[in-house]
Amino acid sequence: MSLSIKDDEIDIVIGALRPDLTSFMNEWRPIFSRFHLIIVKDPDLKEELKIPEGFNLDVYKKPEIDRVVGTSTSTIFSGYSCRYFGYLISRKKFIISVDDDCYPAKDNKGILVDAVAQHITNLTTPATPFFFNTLYDPFTEGADFVRGYPFSLRSGVQCALSCGLWLNLADYDAPTQALKPEERNSRYVDAVLTVPARTLMPISGINIAFNREVIGPALLPSLRLGGEGKFRWETMEDIWSGMCVKVVCDHLGLGVKTGMPYVWRNDRGDAIASLRKEWEGVKLMEEVVPFFQSVRLSREATTTEDCVAEVANVVKEQLGSKDPMFARAAKAMVDWVKLWKSVGSSTSSPGA
Amino acid sequence: MSLSIKDDEIDIVIGALRPDLTSFMNEWRPIFSRFHLIIVKDPDLKEELKIPEGFNLDVYKKPEIDRVVGTSTSTIFSGYSCRYFGYLISRKKFIISVDDDCYPAKDNKGILVDAVAQHITNLTTPATPFFFNTLYDPFTEGADFVRGYPFSLRSGVQCALSCGLWLNLADYDAPTQALKPEERNSRYVDAVLTVPARTLMPISGINIAFNREVIGPALLPSLRLGGEGKFRWETMEDIWSGMCVKVVCDHLGLGVKTGMPYVWRNDRGDAIASLRKEWEGVKLMEEVVPFFQSVRLSREATTTEDCVAEVANVVKEQLGSKDPMFARAAKAMVDWVKLWKSVGSSTSSPGA
Repeated sequence: MSLSIKDDEIDIVIGALRPDLTSFMNEWRPIFSRFHLIIVKDPDLKEELKIPEGFNLDVYKKPEIDRVVGTSTSTIFSGYSCRYFGYLISRKKFIISVDDDCYPAKDNKGILVDAVAQHITNLTTPATPFFFNTLYDPFTEGADFVRGYPFSLRSGVQCALSCGLWLNLADYDAPTQALKPEERNSRYVDAVLTVPARTLMPISGINIAFNREVIGPALLPSLRLGGEGKFRWETMEDIWSGMCVKVVCDHLGLGVKTGMPYVWRNDRGDAIASLRKEWEGVKLMEEVVPFFQSVRLSREATTTEDCVAEVANVVKEQLGSKDPMFARAAKAMVDWVKLWKSVGSSTSSPGA
Repeated sequence: MSLSIKDDEIDIVIGALRPDLTSFMNEWRPIFSRFHLIIVKDPDLKEELKIPEGFNLDVYKKPEIDRVVGTSTSTIFSGYSCRYFGYLISRKKFIISVDDDCYPAKDNKGILVDAVAQHITNLTTPATPFFFNTLYDPFTEGADFVRGYPFSLRSGVQCALSCGLWLNLADYDAPTQALKPEERNSRYVDAVLTVPARTLMPISGINIAFNREVIGPALLPSLRLGGEGKFRWETMEDIWSGMCVKVVCDHLGLGVKTGMPYVWRNDRGDAIASLRKEWEGVKLMEEVVPFFQSVRLSREATTTEDCVAEVANVVKEQLGSKDPMFARAAKAMVDWVKLWKSVGSSTSSPGA
């Protein structure tokens, strides 16, 4: 990990959708125990959380969430979206967030992957979104820019977001998972790369890290499917938020990396049972991708908050009439920016 | 390798810059011996070629080149550019070309990489340039499209070009190589990916394959540096041609992949001695990259030949006055399209 980053500049945010975090926390103990953890309990979850001893953490449940944002707003944090409360309440520079059904992975050589160290390396070395380097991340040990890479672009830009990947159960949608129930991802690709500017991608929230000071307000809970459930393949909140983040990063000249670190993702849920719910999300992308590909922000949008507000306006104008879900998403984005500003200025850090 | 491709649809083109191909050919024998080879001897090379027995091949030397294209044109094939004569004379659907200082690589598990099979797999499975798949090539065994990838984009587009990579001595420029004389690439990244549409990259000619029927005329010898020598880091012909190919592929809706297969590249040449020559190429990219990023072709350009001619026109208009090298490149591109048409229609296949 970059020596210039102190452990206390990092919050690890865990959304707890299951009550028993014992094995999750114990598996991650060698990696997480040095850091401050924010655990946000899904407000819909009734059972008490079981969390093992020996961690430096704060737990937020429905009453705390209600107290900070009000009971009418707290519904936006149900299900996988509970982690966004952690993003909101954190005062740290870097956030790392991993789903509660993921365990540490091992690399090609059988060595435990330090996902925190890799994410922080990704975030603290430059990104290169304006020209593709065929040897992937030129800032990786043993790599460099290849012949023909313009020298003027070699200093790169600040990296705002690091998207990690998954071994074992990959982040497929319900149809793919249902079609290939035995498929497991065993390919450990030893690479990190910058996603080029103006290239969109489906950003998964399963294993991500970001610079909260730079891009925080663009990671937001706003798109909620009608029949959204408690399995990843039933949700689209992270994909929507990810399209928004990428557009904002492109506009502000910030970088997004993808690749390592991997996490080991365990099986959970019945893909076939989810198929009916997921279908709405699958159809959705046919509208959402061309929309985000066409969004261009104005020169006046110079902060992440400005950019999110502008995206929200265009969502409302161009998609709002197509489906009430989009109109709700646009409103949620505007509300989120307000909330980010008010909570950010009124709440002192719980860890401070 | 894809079962639908027959061995006789493939030409392996080797530019011979060194007289003794014995160890090169013997190392590649297990992989190359099933295929027809086109060996083009650098017209500047005086010594006789040494080629071991047991291959199905045609060798082209200066007299044959002169006979096909005329003595005034044959100068375009000197040095690394000699391979382009092989591209021109081939009548096969697929071309694979590897530099004569590269040997077969071994993968992570120590197994010999069949570079031909991997290139052909890359070329015969779809490319996905319009949206990035975080698990890389979704058509690889064991991979798929991730959650959020639009279903309408999952059929992909035809792949026209496959760019392979290098282990041991990577394709760095002379300054990088001189600065890090001990640096060797030992990172075997087990991935192939589509380079997104509108994303440019420095395409190396060291290890590439392409669909000659689809994109052949866009791989061309046109940009020649003043002090160009016989080492890769002294040349830019492939980088220039690669920018042209990528722009044409983007315009025609074709895909370009990068990643596997790797080749093992041996040391050759003195980077420090090359530094003075290379500097011209390094400065060049500062003009060339923004130029190619801004090129947009007209709707009338519907064939690769049309597209190359249009690019040549814009090169002449926008870069021609900046450096006579660009004006010469523009003329060479126009001449190449004419040559491609005339040789293609007048010469029968040497293997037929």
